Amino acid sequence: MTKRIAVLTSGGDAPGMNSAIRAITLSAIKSGFQCFGFFHGYNGLIEQEYTELDTHTVTDITQLGGTILKSARCPAMLEPAGVLQAVNALRKLHIDVLIVIGGDGSFRGMQALSEHWEGQLIGLPGTIDNDLAGCDNTIGFSTAVNTATSAIDKIRDTANAFERVFITEVMGRHNGHIAYHVGIATGAEAIISFENCNPKNAPEILQHLKKAIEQQQQKHGSFLIVLAENLWPGGAQALKDKINKTSATNCALCVLGHIQRGGAPSVEDRILATELGVAAVEAVRHDKELIHADLCPIMIGKINGMLSHTAIEQVLGLDKPVSPQWVQRYQHFLAES
Amino acid sequence: MTKRIAVLTSGGDAPGMNSAIRAITLSAIKSGFQCFGFFHGYNGLIEQEYTELDTHTVTDITQLGGTILKSARCPAMLEPAGVLQAVNALRKLHIDVLIVIGGDGSFRGMQALSEHWEGQLIGLPGTIDNDLAGCDNTIGFSTAVNTATSAIDKIRDTANAFERVFITEVMGRHNGHIAYHVGIATGAEAIISFENCNPKNAPEILQHLKKAIEQQQQKHGSFLIVLAENLWPGGAQALKDKINKTSATNCALCVLGHIQRGGAPSVEDRILATELGVAAVEAVRHDKELIHADLCPIMIGKINGMLSHTAIEQVLGLDKPVSPQWVQRYQHFLAES
Amino acid sequence: MTKRIAVLTSGGDAPGMNSAIRAITLSAIKSGFQCFGFFHGYNGLIEQEYTELDTHTVTDITQLGGTILKSARCPAMLEPAGVLQAVNALRKLHIDVLIVIGGDGSFRGMQALSEHWEGQLIGLPGTIDNDLAGCDNTIGFSTAVNTATSAIDKIRDTANAFERVFITEVMGRHNGHIAYHVGIATGAEAIISFENCNPKNAPEILQHLKKAIEQQQQKHGSFLIVLAENLWPGGAQALKDKINKTSATNCALCVLGHIQRGGAPSVEDRILATELGVAAVEAVRHDKELIHADLCPIMIGKINGMLSHTAIEQVLGLDKPVSPQWVQRYQHFLAES
Amino acid sequence: MTKRIAVLTSGGDAPGMNSAIRAITLSAIKSGFQCFGFFHGYNGLIEQEYTELDTHTVTDITQLGGTILKSARCPAMLEPAGVLQAVNALRKLHIDVLIVIGGDGSFRGMQALSEHWEGQLIGLPGTIDNDLAGCDNTIGFSTAVNTATSAIDKIRDTANAFERVFITEVMGRHNGHIAYHVGIATGAEAIISFENCNPKNAPEILQHLKKAIEQQQQKHGSFLIVLAENLWPGGAQALKDKINKTSATNCALCVLGHIQRGGAPSVEDRILATELGVAAVEAVRHDKELIHADLCPIMIGKINGMLSHTAIEQVLGLDKPVSPQWVQRYQHFLAES
Repeated sequence: MTKRIAVLTSGGDAPGMNSAIRAITLSAIKSGFQCFGFFHGYNGLIEQEYTELDTHTVTDITQLGGTILKSARCPAMLEPAGVLQAVNALRKLHIDVLIVIGGDGSFRGMQALSEHWEGQLIGLPGTIDNDLAGCDNTIGFSTAVNTATSAIDKIRDTANAFERVFITEVMGRHNGHIAYHVGIATGAEAIISFENCNPKNAPEILQHLKKAIEQQQQKHGSFLIVLAENLWPGGAQALKDKINKTSATNCALCVLGHIQRGGAPSVEDRILATELGVAAVEAVRHDKELIHADLCPIMIGKINGMLSHTAIEQVLGLDKPVSPQWVQRYQHFLAES
Repeated sequence: MTKRIAVLTSGGDAPGMNSAIRAITLSAIKSGFQCFGFFHGYNGLIEQEYTELDTHTVTDITQLGGTILKSARCPAMLEPAGVLQAVNALRKLHIDVLIVIGGDGSFRGMQALSEHWEGQLIGLPGTIDNDLAGCDNTIGFSTAVNTATSAIDKIRDTANAFERVFITEVMGRHNGHIAYHVGIATGAEAIISFENCNPKNAPEILQHLKKAIEQQQQKHGSFLIVLAENLWPGGAQALKDKINKTSATNCALCVLGHIQRGGAPSVEDRILATELGVAAVEAVRHDKELIHADLCPIMIGKINGMLSHTAIEQVLGLDKPVSPQWVQRYQHFLAES
Repeated sequence: MTKRIAVLTSGGDAPGMNSAIRAITLSAIKSGFQCFGFFHGYNGLIEQEYTELDTHTVTDITQLGGTILKSARCPAMLEPAGVLQAVNALRKLHIDVLIVIGGDGSFRGMQALSEHWEGQLIGLPGTIDNDLAGCDNTIGFSTAVNTATSAIDKIRDTANAFERVFITEVMGRHNGHIAYHVGIATGAEAIISFENCNPKNAPEILQHLKKAIEQQQQKHGSFLIVLAENLWPGGAQALKDKINKTSATNCALCVLGHIQRGGAPSVEDRILATELGVAAVEAVRHDKELIHADLCPIMIGKINGMLSHTAIEQVLGLDKPVSPQWVQRYQHFLAES
Repeated sequence: MTKRIAVLTSGGDAPGMNSAIRAITLSAIKSGFQCFGFFHGYNGLIEQEYTELDTHTVTDITQLGGTILKSARCPAMLEPAGVLQAVNALRKLHIDVLIVIGGDGSFRGMQALSEHWEGQLIGLPGTIDNDLAGCDNTIGFSTAVNTATSAIDKIRDTANAFERVFITEVMGRHNGHIAYHVGIATGAEAIISFENCNPKNAPEILQHLKKAIEQQQQKHGSFLIVLAENLWPGGAQALKDKINKTSATNCALCVLGHIQRGGAPSVEDRILATELGVAAVEAVRHDKELIHADLCPIMIGKINGMLSHTAIEQVLGLDKPVSPQWVQRYQHFLAES
């Protein structure tokens, strides 16, 4: 019997989501399934705002940032009433499988649905922050770090011209995957991230920066600090003020912000999203073998380069910090005091 | 007799400065002149920190952002003592011609020098802001607007995914050349700049935005506002807060900042900088005919596409606002209330 | 009375065509006109394949390469029968004004139409080659030279690593606007273009290259040759073989090809296209004053930075070579023998 | 005792080589070692053309394409006499460790050296082709596929405008890693590569293309073929002629060529190169534990995301084809006949 697969993108949009939508659609059609897309995340599910996805709909979208299905947060899904509405919609539309591309908030929505809905729930990790367990990289992470790195390469030009100290704040709400990747890739002189900074050691970090900046200025070099967002007490501006005071310098601040979310996806994100989208439809085809016996929602990701299914429960229960060894190993690339 | 030409880059660095340095050097050598570069703007002149520029020095620099001569502000040049030190340095090093690549602050330094120094002073307009009279475009402007536009193209992706309002602040301290170019180029729904906004009409602008945003949201579209820096009372954050309050929306703010200063120069900036650099050395070769009789400092720029000499005095005395007709003509591309 | 304006894109597509379509559409609507787009150039006109253009159609197209109206060559327009079909279509659809965005071939179509049709014909210069009189730059030229320059910047990396000679062929069927802009912008060691090369002086050029390459190799540098297409007898490969034989080197060849046609338009192309599109609709509004008395087809372009109307006849009758002075002036940036 | 580490880059240059040189240098200095770089691959070793690498030498190189040590093929290393000269140089300069960044040809040089030299030999996989066993990806592969993909995204624009068939030839001398990654990432309608094409099945492929192209043209779509180099009998031009004849279309051909070798490295390449460079110096520090007992040359790569040592012998003895399952899985993304 023809299955009916629905897909939605939820939470912060991430480059590559369109590649995943395309891969799911093409694979579904190839498998003889029907494919639908809900708009605006779970809101479109609740309000039954959707479209059928076919070959034509997904032509020439793999190279586009954003998501053709739009995205949104959906507070209604945090309430039992909203969840029931969503379940009713799934039943009314005879959906067999719901594929959700998003982050941890979106996956909690899947958990809530699973308590009331008998269909198959599959999550694909889509968020630039790379803060999901059960996968090496999330869809969107590669593009975000490449965009941030290109931006900081430009900042390096002007920092060099003025032999100046720059703080660049990058995204990453809970961990330093973006900060560390971007910091290493740009050859930053300092990385301040969740992994090496906490409210207690801030004064120590400032002392270290003071010495490192002085050394660098004797060498007539610029000094780039990559800072994770939501971290420094008082925010990036407070760090800038502190540095200016401690180091008697004229530090500049750049907050990269939402440019990290958009743009044509990198090849890495397009390929990852395509692989995961195909794997999701394969999981539907082979559901007896592949899906956990109790039909709990799963996430499909690549772990150590191999496609893997992980129960959403586990994904949500685990942190994915930047590896301490990795942090430690690249520590000596940074300027020393 | 072999002339000795010196060049320095001063004030905010701008992509294309290296193309100008290269063009001056290659043209000077071709003309049988010697060519020197002072480091760190006027500071390197005062402190006689310089290098001889030859073919090898300028190989493969035309594609680089920043400036190989470094740049800096130089408070010393605002004091008579500093100016005299600079004049002494020029005499001691037997410099015949000083070429300054920079903006209005840098040109004031040339004026100060001209009162005490008998050599030839030539300015080339180099600043991303495009706020200098005597030229269609300054070196760096094209790259800056292209960088800002690429960044906002990315923001459009995420704005579309969320049908969200975004403010993007672009550079331009005194006028809206960047804001208007970027706003038109990105198809922004609103441009808030020196030309159409002042402390008095802020409430009116907010009312207009409120209506325009509502209309746009009914069409399920995103709404991009390009904002000139240093303009809105209380800054971009204050505008964001006002909009959120007036329009009951969740407006996001991106401050593009220094990424607009760096990066490989656009072809337009490389070519303009090359043409102006060559023209500067030509002005030295033909000084009798071309330079104003009283040897007052001149700036070389392109006006309506043609190389032109303008007395620095005139450059500094004139504003170069964005043309009101131009502003008016593209007004209807913006969202209407 | 409401006028009915139609637009089509014809001949080789050029980045910025979409910006022009958007500007025409938004301006037309603002002026109370109706706006239509024919698909596939003149073919869509002949076959009455068209769509109404409205605000929604042109949302988010200004940043896209290609043309939403598609383009094509149209051999039918070279035959009287085809021209009459086109005229009939214009009459049947009650079109008052036809705006054609394209190059010289497309403008010849306008001329043919004007002999039989009483409506207003306006051309906008759209071709990456920049080979049209009556304008400083054509729509698409800026993006093409920026794309080619970025590509050659990459080639420089590998050329430097191997201290190797590279020929890069760029587009430009009849003149060297692309070749010279790209050659100067990349700091190429040699430019071989229509302006300095002809079948007769080929042996001389080879001798010059031989000496210049030897000198460069003594300095351990790479050697980049920018070559205009359709120029060298036997093609780029023949030049490569000659150089390898004459200079006992291992010259590499890159033909940039169609990547020069696509991609997000540069700000320069977006703004130019927008200005010309607005000016076209303004010409319609003020047709009594602005259009030549005999209603001959005109092209709107910017000459020395100012919007100008030129009779198509004149545009087609004039060459726009690269300025010989310009060629001569930058000659000494090239490697010398 | 302070060890003396030397590094060279050999064979085709690859973006990221500079990141590896930087990582080796900084790690070596941190470990108290001295670090040297030979120029022009093995040629610089044989001719003792080298420089000491220090912090200053490697500042701001991680973002540069090419290699600051230059690269070259070295025929002398294929002769016993050349190998002995190289060994003598290593002894004379008291080199303890030689790190070679390159591809299989470069690694054969290491094997030759190991027969006569008692020092430690470490290879890092550096080639855009990704054709080395013992690693997931080689340094340079990510940048090359991203560059090729961006180029084909541009080609898609013009292909769409003309609903035209395009062949784009990408690099990859022996396998289809580039072709398949780029083909999937761009949503190409066909991929012709070593994995699915051989001299025997060429007629069959042409038949398939004929049907698929016809179908696509009925849908008014463009049709992109990604072709691996060195594969089709008679070359890409021959394929183009065949398609034009079989399908009565006007197929265009783009050979991307050396632009795939250059440019700022992607984050993926910068990070990979940095990790491998650090791991190489770690292997030196811990040589007793980590290096194979017989001191045979090893390559360090990441396998399934984890740092791994593989004997060069094994690397050279094994193919790394594109996984047949992978090829098979994405087959249905391609246009069907």
